[in-house]
Amino acid sequence: MTTSQAILTVDAVLLTLVEAELHVALIRREAEPFAGHWGLPGGYIHEQEDDSAKAAIARVLQAKAGVESPYLEEYGTFSGPVRDPRGWSLTVVYFALAPVVSGQVQMFPVHALPNLPFDHTQIIAKVLERVRSKASYSSLPVHLCPPEFTIPELHAVYEVVMGEKLNIANFRRKLEDLQVLEEIPGCLRSGGRSRPSQVYRVSKKYRNALSVRERGL
Amino acid sequence: MTTSQAILTVDAVLLTLVEAELHVALIRREAEPFAGHWGLPGGYIHEQEDDSAKAAIARVLQAKAGVESPYLEEYGTFSGPVRDPRGWSLTVVYFALAPVVSGQVQMFPVHALPNLPFDHTQIIAKVLERVRSKASYSSLPVHLCPPEFTIPELHAVYEVVMGEKLNIANFRRKLEDLQVLEEIPGCLRSGGRSRPSQVYRVSKKYRNALSVRERGL
Repeated sequence: MTTSQAILTVDAVLLTLVEAELHVALIRREAEPFAGHWGLPGGYIHEQEDDSAKAAIARVLQAKAGVESPYLEEYGTFSGPVRDPRGWSLTVVYFALAPVVSGQVQMFPVHALPNLPFDHTQIIAKVLERVRSKASYSSLPVHLCPPEFTIPELHAVYEVVMGEKLNIANFRRKLEDLQVLEEIPGCLRSGGRSRPSQVYRVSKKYRNALSVRERGL
Repeated sequence: MTTSQAILTVDAVLLTLVEAELHVALIRREAEPFAGHWGLPGGYIHEQEDDSAKAAIARVLQAKAGVESPYLEEYGTFSGPVRDPRGWSLTVVYFALAPVVSGQVQMFPVHALPNLPFDHTQIIAKVLERVRSKASYSSLPVHLCPPEFTIPELHAVYEVVMGEKLNIANFRRKLEDLQVLEEIPGCLRSGGRSRPSQVYRVSKKYRNALSVRERGL
């Protein structure tokens, strides 16, 4: 049997908001190559314990970033003979969104990343493109919010993720299409000078999933 | 260095139209496991010649199905300890669309597939779901068409892919949004009893790419 000798890994672009700016989690690499450098959290599959590549990256994120069940989606693979000095390699890249992150990772603003090894800079750029695009027609950014939030707060999160101003009236209407939120009865929050806003949470069905707006040809 | 011993492969769901029905290309497996059974065309990475996993599957499709440059897109990975009897394995799955297919593969209607090894039945089902969804907001089905076609012909292809009737007037309008087609000047084709239809081709920019309709929150 001739099997491939390619190196197989999983990596995650874990995003969170810090002071209203999108941040990505990086970790100091312990092993060669590039030991001591900042890089994406990731690693090898553990054949004895991981039921899938997704389970492998979930294990890494729990151990290194203290996130139990973030929103986690496969972005795609990056592969080839030159991306890793050890030889032909393939990594399955996931993106994860969480309201808070802890553990050994450190958060960096997406606009001020250090030099990164392998193709990690390109991976982050590609994932951010996907996340921005997906935010424009789905409930993806709710996974950056704490469990309870107002519409103005969620609106601000969408603006940060998409990097542009969004008309609040349109936003409310399109959010209703998504049907992901439920009111927390009787819970209002003061928003400074404006009148108090209703507080919402993500309905159970969408806690680890997305709602996508209907399109149709 | 502890690297993973996981088995890494690439597989393709190659789709084409035969007599106005969507078909998938299968090939008789030469090697164990499941030698002699029908399966998806795929195989190992060839580290010496493949620049990426996508290059590996393009090589396989050219060799086994005679398709030079089909529309080719990564679907995602399937992985785990039980999908391959040899051990923990990961396959990167691509979908490909081509107007004609030749070589060692045989085309099966998607509704009448033989029993397939590994998780190939599930892979095909998942890819078809993606292709149908993507067809509803993109130019994806044009890659099933021959180089020159009329709008009624393309409309019929969309209906086959999506498995539903599409209003022709809406279809024409939405197709215009996509801006993927160009008229072949002076080229008309008779459509039976109706008046002759203008013949179109995909504009160069989109021959191996997609156009997607705008959505926006």
